Amino acid sequence: MPDVTLPFDRAEYHDRLARVRRAMDDAGLDVLFTCDPSNMAWLTGYDGWSFYVHQGVIVGPEGEPVFWGRRMDAMGAMRTCYMDAANIVGYSDDYVMSSDSHAMEHLAETIKARGWDGRRIGVEKENYYYSARAHEVLERNLEGALVDATLLVNWQRVIKSPTEIRFMRRAARIVENMHRHILEIVEPGRRRNEIAAAIYHTGLWGSEDEDGLFGGDYAAIAPLMPTGRDATAAHLTWDDRPFEEGAATFFEIAGCYRRYHAPLCRTIFLGEPPADMRFAEEAVIEGIEAGISAARPGNTAGDVARAFYDVLQKRGIKREGRCGYPIGLSYPPDWGERTFSIRPNDQTELKPNMTFHLMTALWMDEWGLEITEPLRVRSEGPAECLANYPRQLFVKP
Amino acid sequence: MPDVTLPFDRAEYHDRLARVRRAMDDAGLDVLFTCDPSNMAWLTGYDGWSFYVHQGVIVGPEGEPVFWGRRMDAMGAMRTCYMDAANIVGYSDDYVMSSDSHAMEHLAETIKARGWDGRRIGVEKENYYYSARAHEVLERNLEGALVDATLLVNWQRVIKSPTEIRFMRRAARIVENMHRHILEIVEPGRRRNEIAAAIYHTGLWGSEDEDGLFGGDYAAIAPLMPTGRDATAAHLTWDDRPFEEGAATFFEIAGCYRRYHAPLCRTIFLGEPPADMRFAEEAVIEGIEAGISAARPGNTAGDVARAFYDVLQKRGIKREGRCGYPIGLSYPPDWGERTFSIRPNDQTELKPNMTFHLMTALWMDEWGLEITEPLRVRSEGPAECLANYPRQLFVKP
Repeated sequence: MPDVTLPFDRAEYHDRLARVRRAMDDAGLDVLFTCDPSNMAWLTGYDGWSFYVHQGVIVGPEGEPVFWGRRMDAMGAMRTCYMDAANIVGYSDDYVMSSDSHAMEHLAETIKARGWDGRRIGVEKENYYYSARAHEVLERNLEGALVDATLLVNWQRVIKSPTEIRFMRRAARIVENMHRHILEIVEPGRRRNEIAAAIYHTGLWGSEDEDGLFGGDYAAIAPLMPTGRDATAAHLTWDDRPFEEGAATFFEIAGCYRRYHAPLCRTIFLGEPPADMRFAEEAVIEGIEAGISAARPGNTAGDVARAFYDVLQKRGIKREGRCGYPIGLSYPPDWGERTFSIRPNDQTELKPNMTFHLMTALWMDEWGLEITEPLRVRSEGPAECLANYPRQLFVKP
Repeated sequence: MPDVTLPFDRAEYHDRLARVRRAMDDAGLDVLFTCDPSNMAWLTGYDGWSFYVHQGVIVGPEGEPVFWGRRMDAMGAMRTCYMDAANIVGYSDDYVMSSDSHAMEHLAETIKARGWDGRRIGVEKENYYYSARAHEVLERNLEGALVDATLLVNWQRVIKSPTEIRFMRRAARIVENMHRHILEIVEPGRRRNEIAAAIYHTGLWGSEDEDGLFGGDYAAIAPLMPTGRDATAAHLTWDDRPFEEGAATFFEIAGCYRRYHAPLCRTIFLGEPPADMRFAEEAVIEGIEAGISAARPGNTAGDVARAFYDVLQKRGIKREGRCGYPIGLSYPPDWGERTFSIRPNDQTELKPNMTFHLMTALWMDEWGLEITEPLRVRSEGPAECLANYPRQLFVKP
């Protein structure tokens, strides 16, 4: 094993692998190929921005997981994974962005070389990094059945370990700092890109807790910070126009520590907010309290959503869709874990140390208001707010 | 049309659409569905971090392109695209991260509703945001043939317009500032995350040119900045350990202006670099000069690669693979455009206003050295370096 500083101890990686193998057994799989970067990191420690080429982790019937990727990224695996060099496999650059050959041909050879061909092999058919073409080439080059195992690993990540919770609390310290800094400097006339610069700077600088100083990591989504009418849309970023008086801006951002996220959104109004926004603020805060109270073991994800929506309905505010999603370890393009959703019909039972973002944003006809909380399900009672930041619409005169 | 501030004038969007339609004709396509976020933005102006759910632009046989995405992102399209509201189509949140239904069912309905079913429909089978499952569901729900049209739009983006070149020059001003700032503050004992914070801050703050101040955008790849032995790997980011004396760190970063990139890498050694690194520095600089000189109209991408590799070979330095790729408008996870490659066997003919990153990094057994240049092919003679930053290994005693 190379001189690698892993974020978790070996026992934790072994436990994760054992959990995945049990899930594979339940699904009747002999082999699993996961290319979700978050799953790869969770299983092996691998950490690099290399997911723009084909790569993945192979979990065979026994032994260590196998890192498979571009040769230059196999070097990165040697620096970040716990496995023996024999279980780190690189392919030549000839396969990269090529119309003649496809990396999945090499993956098929790798699986065959280990004698794992002709078995039931799980793949993640619904993943950003598993293209239609990748699947086609892999299928053509392998004997045996490719079985859809989308989210099989993600579901094993749903309940967080004590160390994972500690990482997320650090991420929460970071996102608190980010919001404090935004509030301090945002004002009419200031260019939006300057606030984006400050958000990144504060986020990466990090924070401090009882164990000392720690630095921040890049979040899996860029800061979303539309202002005024642009805030009727959920996912706009910024440009270099100035902030204006008389408009609300929401800041949808996350603190990130060693790839673990704590997203938290707040909204700042420059000037005097209209009455309907104040009314919505009250409703959302009451809705969040109801959601937090419903987020306890034994209840379902749907119970949390209904608790929130009941408050909105009572107050005559229309909203639909998801109002939350699980969070933890993530890589771009999403900091959600994509397993359960906080929505009325989701039957997933909540268990202690599940973590999710209660995403109670309102996107209205004229403006947007985002006040949200990252939560941890406790062993009893209402959920813990990972962050400690005033839950309100901020107003700067 | 809503009150949208487009980065390009309408004529440029019309020209792009016409070019894509001609390429569709050549490929025998009636309809094209592109989900590459860079293609979407290039065709319509759409700009948002929403590519973590299924979305795309449909180019039919006539009329405006159609934005198709999640309902909340259709609101974003209303704020960033030039098309009429009738050509902005949103689907319900019920399709998002759901195991019951898939957004591609809705896309199939959208295509049918316009009478474009039963035709030859191009899709991007090799794209991050077109999963194996998406293809399967779309195919099952549509009559007519789905044809692989991967990179069809990307190839239309290869030659840059004057405005695009202007945007890339602004990105180059930004990346120059980033490197100047790094060199100023990096030193033994400083935590790596603090440098990452400074890189983002400088990059987003922006710069100034003859037209005035401008702000920066997020780059499509996070800063890659491994130090010491970690720099033998290409794609590692940072953590919160301090920089140490006696080690080289490369900074693989890009300036970004309105989604247009100028990547430029430099390496800083803290202390006295070993002789073999100095030797490699000389070779790389000579290789870059040879590459720039070969990067002229009429030559091929392969000619540029061979010019660079000839120098390395003469000096006995082993390297293989790609040493460059086209750049311009990009979204995560990659700032490359994925059409041609600078590698010995690439036959693509270079034409004026093609832009690429001459990616002449060396990842050796003990260290890494990255000195690279973003280039523009001129109408004659050697390529223009978009950035103006000293081409050397920097040494801080």
